[in-house]
Amino acid sequence: MQGVLTGLRVIELSAFVAAPLGGAVMAAMGADVIRVDPLGGGIDARRWPVHEGRSLYWEGLNLDLRSERGQELAARLAADAGTVLTNLPARGPLEYERLRERRPDLVMLSITGRADGGAAVDYTVNAGIGFPWITGPEGHEGPVNHVLPAWDVATGHLAVAGVLAADRHRLLTGEGRLVRLSLADVALVVASHLGLLMEAQLVEQPRARFGNHVYGTFGRDFRTRDGRYVMVLALTPRQMRSLAEATGLPEGLIEADLSDEGERWRHRQELCDLVEPWIAERSLSEVRDAFERHQVLWGPYLTFKELLETDAQAWRPPATALDFGDAERAAALPAPSLGADTTQVLQEIGEDVEALRAAGVVP
Amino acid sequence: MQGVLTGLRVIELSAFVAAPLGGAVMAAMGADVIRVDPLGGGIDARRWPVHEGRSLYWEGLNLDLRSERGQELAARLAADAGTVLTNLPARGPLEYERLRERRPDLVMLSITGRADGGAAVDYTVNAGIGFPWITGPEGHEGPVNHVLPAWDVATGHLAVAGVLAADRHRLLTGEGRLVRLSLADVALVVASHLGLLMEAQLVEQPRARFGNHVYGTFGRDFRTRDGRYVMVLALTPRQMRSLAEATGLPEGLIEADLSDEGERWRHRQELCDLVEPWIAERSLSEVRDAFERHQVLWGPYLTFKELLETDAQAWRPPATALDFGDAERAAALPAPSLGADTTQVLQEIGEDVEALRAAGVVP
Repeated sequence: MQGVLTGLRVIELSAFVAAPLGGAVMAAMGADVIRVDPLGGGIDARRWPVHEGRSLYWEGLNLDLRSERGQELAARLAADAGTVLTNLPARGPLEYERLRERRPDLVMLSITGRADGGAAVDYTVNAGIGFPWITGPEGHEGPVNHVLPAWDVATGHLAVAGVLAADRHRLLTGEGRLVRLSLADVALVVASHLGLLMEAQLVEQPRARFGNHVYGTFGRDFRTRDGRYVMVLALTPRQMRSLAEATGLPEGLIEADLSDEGERWRHRQELCDLVEPWIAERSLSEVRDAFERHQVLWGPYLTFKELLETDAQAWRPPATALDFGDAERAAALPAPSLGADTTQVLQEIGEDVEALRAAGVVP
Repeated sequence: MQGVLTGLRVIELSAFVAAPLGGAVMAAMGADVIRVDPLGGGIDARRWPVHEGRSLYWEGLNLDLRSERGQELAARLAADAGTVLTNLPARGPLEYERLRERRPDLVMLSITGRADGGAAVDYTVNAGIGFPWITGPEGHEGPVNHVLPAWDVATGHLAVAGVLAADRHRLLTGEGRLVRLSLADVALVVASHLGLLMEAQLVEQPRARFGNHVYGTFGRDFRTRDGRYVMVLALTPRQMRSLAEATGLPEGLIEADLSDEGERWRHRQELCDLVEPWIAERSLSEVRDAFERHQVLWGPYLTFKELLETDAQAWRPPATALDFGDAERAAALPAPSLGADTTQVLQEIGEDVEALRAAGVVP
């Protein structure tokens, strides 16, 4: 595949979501990413969803990673490539210090659950970061989890940034390095960026659970006459005017300056009580017409099935959301089947694949 | 600030979350990121949360971006820096084609709501991508939004990867480029990576809303005797054995091979019925002891306040989750106040700041 990262080879030792996602993001930009899996597949080889007998996770090279010879082979591949992305414990010849002996400018990015190496996954990290207590319907008792593994997704993307930042430093100085990244730290830093930690530190009663209201401004879901749902927002004064015009809100009805987002938040219930019947009396199509005419900030709720109905190509989107302006953007491809690249990649570094096969190191 | 990106200067023209987050991530790696805001601040200058009169978003340079002279000045800064990150419409001399006349190897990454330039924000994108129908309590009617702006977060991180990938290409070939990225595409590609789009395409009845159950394996929240909640998972056969040992699950009670994750999913209710009373009879501290002894994959639910109580330093985490092994990791700093860098940055490119001030171009 062509792309801006052509020429960068990355060895991926991974399972589940964060590191495979990072690998897929780099591959979609043209990097030559080779996931090395143990014989029979990694611990995620049968992770749902599996379709047509094939995991959706990236798989390429198949080695007996439990044997010394298999580990040695993987280390040779890593040293040859010069760049490693992993979210598995590095053992034996695959430890950073030992790889660096073979390849002094190695860049290795290692993802863990917690920074201290403790076990954690997206779901346990999310439990510990506060969001389940402010997500979900008002009045609901107990935590509500995201279904989107948002910390895995953020970590996978940030891992790519980390690899490329370290690679940039290597290109300019010749120095490699080990980069560590934990899911727990990603969640903590993102919560900090979003202001939630400082809020919890400074405010006696930090924000509660507000259902689908968008905190600190105006935004919520509404139901149309034909039983569809729409998300409607007014993040800016202009968007507030658009919404007022589209739905015919009476001027001066609410004794507040709705150009101020804090006022929109404080008066959210009155605003909802005005917008709600207007939407409830109209079909999605009528709401769409009025909202588009007035440039209201809104969007319909769609199930995954409905999304595919609105766009028949949506189920096979581009391989990456980044559009580098290349004439043709590569479509997402299914991951290679387990071991598909084994023979070719090992031959490239001069290995006798038949001998390895006879020794049971490769299948 | 020192860091792997030292020497990279980025001009940021931005508002709200995705681009400012990307800028903050690069700044935390040592890049010199300068957010250029219009006089009086951007449209997010008063966006909540605001504490001690200061937005948590990144602000540095303050210009009259509505005037021709202010736009010209911003364009000079952008051409001088060579790298631009934006999620605002580029107008006049700040358009990519015009900037490229001044700086042929410019790298510019432009974030939009939709790829066609249509208005969309995290909340409308999320409405359209299916997750609100599978998030939230079982039996709940209507969509349930994430409170975490997960698409903004993913997009901000991916934007950094995009800038660094284009910069890598520039370092190796001398060529710059415009990189486009939309929130809607990020959501679509992530849903594709996670297998949800293919599932919706291939399966008659795609997954429903399963509350806090982790789809396709075993994982859910449970309540302890002292009213706390814990997230408990068994993603692997080993973790299933750990959970069985810790909670004393009777062998052979469930007529299924629980080493298979599909079986754990199908028997999730029976498993929950066994685990639930065991946890309900114990305090969080007793659960913790048993789970840690048996290496169960679990985590306590914490509110943002409780998180800070467990770790007094948590409210001021490192500036980035990426640990490049530097002796000391920089702590997150508050964003500079609006216009804090105006004089210094303009003097660096040889501007007469007093004259600009007299003309009303800078405050």
